[in-house]
Amino acid sequence: VVKRDVVRVITPGTLTDDILLDEKEDNFLCAPYLGPKGAALCWVDISTGHFYAQQLDEDAIVDEILRLSPSECLVPEKREQLFGDDYAKLAKQLSEISSIVITHRPGWYFDPYSAEKSLLKHFGTNTLEGFGVDGDSDVIPPAGALLEYLSETQKTSLAHIRSIKLINKRSFLHIDQTSLRSLEILRTMRSEDKKGSLFDSIDQTLTGMGARMLRGWVCMPLRQVDRITERHTAVQELCDFSQKLDDIRSQLKNTADLERIVSRISTFRASPKDFVLLADTLRKIPAMKLLLSESVSGLLKNLAQGCDTMEELADLLEAAIEPECPSHFRDGGVIRTGFNAELDELRGISKDGRSWLAAYQKKQIELTGIQNLKLGFNKVFGYYLEISRSMADQVPGDYVRKQTLKNAERYITQELKEYEDKVLSAHERSLELELSIFDQLRSRAAGYASRLQVLAQCVGCIDCIASLAHLALRRGYIRPEMCGEKVLEIKEGKHPVVAQSLGNEFVSNDLELGGESADVMIITGPNMSGKSTYIRQSALLVLMAQMGSFIPAESARIGVVDRIFTRVGASDELARGQSTFMVEMTETANIINNATDRSLVVLDEVGRGTSTYDGLSLAWAITEHIANNIGCRTLFATHYHELTELAQLLDNVKNCNVAVREWMDEVVFLHKIVPGGTDKSYGIHVARLAGLPASITARSREILDDLESTFVKEASGEKLARNKTAQQPQQQLFVEQNRSVLE
Amino acid sequence: VVKRDVVRVITPGTLTDDILLDEKEDNFLCAPYLGPKGAALCWVDISTGHFYAQQLDEDAIVDEILRLSPSECLVPEKREQLFGDDYAKLAKQLSEISSIVITHRPGWYFDPYSAEKSLLKHFGTNTLEGFGVDGDSDVIPPAGALLEYLSETQKTSLAHIRSIKLINKRSFLHIDQTSLRSLEILRTMRSEDKKGSLFDSIDQTLTGMGARMLRGWVCMPLRQVDRITERHTAVQELCDFSQKLDDIRSQLKNTADLERIVSRISTFRASPKDFVLLADTLRKIPAMKLLLSESVSGLLKNLAQGCDTMEELADLLEAAIEPECPSHFRDGGVIRTGFNAELDELRGISKDGRSWLAAYQKKQIELTGIQNLKLGFNKVFGYYLEISRSMADQVPGDYVRKQTLKNAERYITQELKEYEDKVLSAHERSLELELSIFDQLRSRAAGYASRLQVLAQCVGCIDCIASLAHLALRRGYIRPEMCGEKVLEIKEGKHPVVAQSLGNEFVSNDLELGGESADVMIITGPNMSGKSTYIRQSALLVLMAQMGSFIPAESARIGVVDRIFTRVGASDELARGQSTFMVEMTETANIINNATDRSLVVLDEVGRGTSTYDGLSLAWAITEHIANNIGCRTLFATHYHELTELAQLLDNVKNCNVAVREWMDEVVFLHKIVPGGTDKSYGIHVARLAGLPASITARSREILDDLESTFVKEASGEKLARNKTAQQPQQQLFVEQNRSVLE
Repeated sequence: VVKRDVVRVITPGTLTDDILLDEKEDNFLCAPYLGPKGAALCWVDISTGHFYAQQLDEDAIVDEILRLSPSECLVPEKREQLFGDDYAKLAKQLSEISSIVITHRPGWYFDPYSAEKSLLKHFGTNTLEGFGVDGDSDVIPPAGALLEYLSETQKTSLAHIRSIKLINKRSFLHIDQTSLRSLEILRTMRSEDKKGSLFDSIDQTLTGMGARMLRGWVCMPLRQVDRITERHTAVQELCDFSQKLDDIRSQLKNTADLERIVSRISTFRASPKDFVLLADTLRKIPAMKLLLSESVSGLLKNLAQGCDTMEELADLLEAAIEPECPSHFRDGGVIRTGFNAELDELRGISKDGRSWLAAYQKKQIELTGIQNLKLGFNKVFGYYLEISRSMADQVPGDYVRKQTLKNAERYITQELKEYEDKVLSAHERSLELELSIFDQLRSRAAGYASRLQVLAQCVGCIDCIASLAHLALRRGYIRPEMCGEKVLEIKEGKHPVVAQSLGNEFVSNDLELGGESADVMIITGPNMSGKSTYIRQSALLVLMAQMGSFIPAESARIGVVDRIFTRVGASDELARGQSTFMVEMTETANIINNATDRSLVVLDEVGRGTSTYDGLSLAWAITEHIANNIGCRTLFATHYHELTELAQLLDNVKNCNVAVREWMDEVVFLHKIVPGGTDKSYGIHVARLAGLPASITARSREILDDLESTFVKEASGEKLARNKTAQQPQQQLFVEQNRSVLE
Repeated sequence: VVKRDVVRVITPGTLTDDILLDEKEDNFLCAPYLGPKGAALCWVDISTGHFYAQQLDEDAIVDEILRLSPSECLVPEKREQLFGDDYAKLAKQLSEISSIVITHRPGWYFDPYSAEKSLLKHFGTNTLEGFGVDGDSDVIPPAGALLEYLSETQKTSLAHIRSIKLINKRSFLHIDQTSLRSLEILRTMRSEDKKGSLFDSIDQTLTGMGARMLRGWVCMPLRQVDRITERHTAVQELCDFSQKLDDIRSQLKNTADLERIVSRISTFRASPKDFVLLADTLRKIPAMKLLLSESVSGLLKNLAQGCDTMEELADLLEAAIEPECPSHFRDGGVIRTGFNAELDELRGISKDGRSWLAAYQKKQIELTGIQNLKLGFNKVFGYYLEISRSMADQVPGDYVRKQTLKNAERYITQELKEYEDKVLSAHERSLELELSIFDQLRSRAAGYASRLQVLAQCVGCIDCIASLAHLALRRGYIRPEMCGEKVLEIKEGKHPVVAQSLGNEFVSNDLELGGESADVMIITGPNMSGKSTYIRQSALLVLMAQMGSFIPAESARIGVVDRIFTRVGASDELARGQSTFMVEMTETANIINNATDRSLVVLDEVGRGTSTYDGLSLAWAITEHIANNIGCRTLFATHYHELTELAQLLDNVKNCNVAVREWMDEVVFLHKIVPGGTDKSYGIHVARLAGLPASITARSREILDDLESTFVKEASGEKLARNKTAQQPQQQLFVEQNRSVLE
């Protein structure tokens, strides 16, 4: 019954079948390009038709690929001098640090001339400038290679890939791979689990389109105040009208994944079920449009306008497809009765035939008296009568024996065969007709592909905004005030994930950086006291605000950030054979070399991987450089309590610490960040509690006093204070002022 | 066919079936006792009959239970004031840190009076003093509780538990649970995997008994020089006669697990297969005895004597049991033809009966002409003739219809029933007879239980010695010289596990502690350079030597050690909710309070979990205390390079460091431990290589110079040098002498 003999090559990056795909994640196929002038990266999700391109620095390619986490990556084959070592190195890096499948294809896939030709042909345009792509752009070779590979593997129309979208990094808050991991945005660090990540915690979307879009928002938050405000205003409006929000969300429930259905329609792989779902979903759009139509927010108004109801398509599909249709064509029954007169007639014959057969069997049993006479069907000789062997001598003369089994004989009769022809051909012709009608429907639906894709984006965006509003209402999040100044003020902020799992036990904390306050904050405090949670939380709140979300806090004023940098405890990252300290320093150098005054920098224990004074000297010099030369908002959690002296020497540095109390011979962490350096005698105090003899703790205290007092002298001395910016000592030196209260 | 209606309660700690047990591990059931005078611990493995008792301090109980890693732990139920909070706390601790099943039993199980009575009754003695157990010993209550619980669950003889062995801790090198974990003796630290552990790496045993005994040797190495030497001499002799070693090992191959077979025989659970294996194994003993009989080593001579061949038992079993016997009794066939005349006769009848039945079926088909007549059997009415329903009118008159099915009728005849009685009863009687013969054999074999247990111990010990010899030959290990002095000298030592996986790449290292040299060694060097491997290796080599093994080195002189203490990098041990630093200090306090001058102490990065000066002060005071007050052999790997100054101040401290070279802009670790403190500018050097701007590294160096020179002044100053023992400065102060060569 199968008409076409299309052979499809299935690869990890070119899947379109729902059962093989994660509904909430894009399934990207990507291609990097290392050209003579610059580098570029293109990626496509054939299951949704999204096609992206981006020009970027060569050394940002790995980061970007890891962020996209594609299933498959296309690189040119090595061929003598061409496409050589650079690609080999890239492929090796990728294969070492991720589970991406690397696919090699001939170099000409990446040839700029043939790539441009195939792109122009695919999009049916004379130039790519309409997509913002110049004729000599570096994105052309990889984009062309992707198209070539898709047509090689798919051997079918790729009509749903209708445009190429150029990503401009400057519009987005940049989060590098290290930060993506250490802030646990998509997966947790230790178990690489989705559960427990930021995305998992805040995702309240109800559709696949919405989930994938929200995932994109989390990975690429915005950088322009007006665009962020546009989202916040939309979220705000849905929060204010919570009945409307609930109504919208109940429409979104059970909405089909339009993008993926369009993709299957365009590649001739849509199933009858897809059409039923598509029609059902289209029927929900008018209600959604109505709900949004009276909005005040510009974004919501636009979304209302984007609700393209396509009633004629819905009408057509509903009239044509049986609502309870089978998922396979094998037995027909897909096209609705009444849609096509010829089909209805053929089905009549086929159906009558069956009752005729039942009657015929009954008649033969009566005629022969053989009770166990049965009517059967097989592919070799069609319908037959089966009689147990022991009765074989009792069959009438007009039975023709066709087959002898162990215990039975099979016969045909003239009458049976004549009817069979009529019935079978009617059934077969009805199936063929159904298929042809279905194909026509597919073609008709394919004509709507571009409108459906726009609608899918619109529904996805509604889902995202509604998800954020739902989240904000459910958890009591507040709308952050966004501005362009270098400021970061959060009152009673909470870690969005940890606060959720701890509930009321979680201790909220304030943060003030930039603006009136210093840019650099040194945070000291014992292990396990919450330093790391606090600095991660600060970065996550900025990220959430810039993606358009409300945030867990009492109030917040956030000046947009261009990049988030993190250098966070490399617990087990013996990655790529480098020593942990080498990794630590490489990441730090990346921050120092790339941070601007608008970046947000989060440092956790920098300098720990080497010896004491070495690490302290580096941490000191790095902090001086950030405070005096870069001036970006920075949170630095450290065990080097000596760094707190910097607040005395530099205007742009201030100290905070985590409050600790002794209670019934135990140390209790209050998880509250308070101004000032921390009490230094905590370690010796714990040692005493742990049972170290008093002689040793007393001796430790003696040594500590000596070291501290020397360091204090040192810190105000000529050399350490050389880069001093504070004009007058604001207060007494820290150590003297904060004599231990514990010991 | 089952005669006995014994009901057995299966619990994790009382398994005897091979398929449920790990061949290489004991399966202990244990019971702690917290008495008014002291504490005790008893444990038993019912699958081997081993029964141990130990008196110990209350706070050592958890450690000891964790070392034994039993499957189940028996504690008394809480009952008002009795058996209350202490046990509840213990049970809670155990359940938190391990997967032991806690079983609660009434308090009277632990009652000293009834416990003693049941022990005396079980062993059939008037006093327990023969086992070294006094009448008021604290081991009696838990030992009695175990016996009570076993008889409650097993409901069968426990005759194979023939003695209680009192463990005297003083005879063994004590390894606490922390060291067991951090030295990866039984499992790796990160993945808790057996693969990659010391035991896995050195175990070359061929029998379950040997594997379990070697595991015991690894966990409890010896402490007396003569007993260690006894094992070394035996290993040496087998190494010297490698043909003999191979012969012994080929005898050991396919040796059955005697201990577990004895246990099943005594508890009436032995299978026919067990007897076949037992006989086969006994047949190997004479050859083993012969191979060992001309040994020089005292231990080997003793083992030769222990080879009890028990030929009469082997003869009996071979004569009685069919070699290819089925594993179940269901269909008989276990007892060999010729062993019992009555059995042979009954089997004859049963066998003839079957051919009679076949003949009868054939005859009936001929008689009736019904081709599909079949002879069948069911439980309700025995043998029957089945005929398809359509032929029912053709059956002879003497057929009696017994059952009507959908398509068939079932009949019996007089003749059929008469023969049936004869055949069936013969078959049934033969099965009954087989079972009774088998039971007699079991009883006969049970009479050998105690001799078999002694033999099992002997075979296990042969296996261990042969395993160690095989290991020594295969890997080129050498025999360490053992002595009673406080000395530890190893030339070209290797880490037994890491060296094995790295092969030639592994760099061997010397060690000299105690004796002529200082007791305390401070080891400095960058991350990943091999410090941790080196200090762990030193502990493992001592442990291996004291368990009786040869070691990977060129030569070694080892003064026996009473305890091994480790305090090793708590990477992820957020155990029991304590902060990592609290764990670190608790473990350190344990060392300081319990180490003697004969202990071996391994410290890795103590003081890291707190702020810089805090940690340095503690590490300084701890090192002073160990060097001046305890004087035990100590390896201390640290990032506090400042501690190297201690070698100038204290006689009993020396410095080593890990050699590092710069090569083509990369840092290469030579993994070689060399005398002297390490070069301090390594961190800043790496920072430069990692791409930190020159302005920052230059500033770091300036700060570092300042800190260092201040510290040098400080270290020779009044306070830090207060506990100085070195009479005259042996050389210039370290920092000045070792000015960086890298930067």
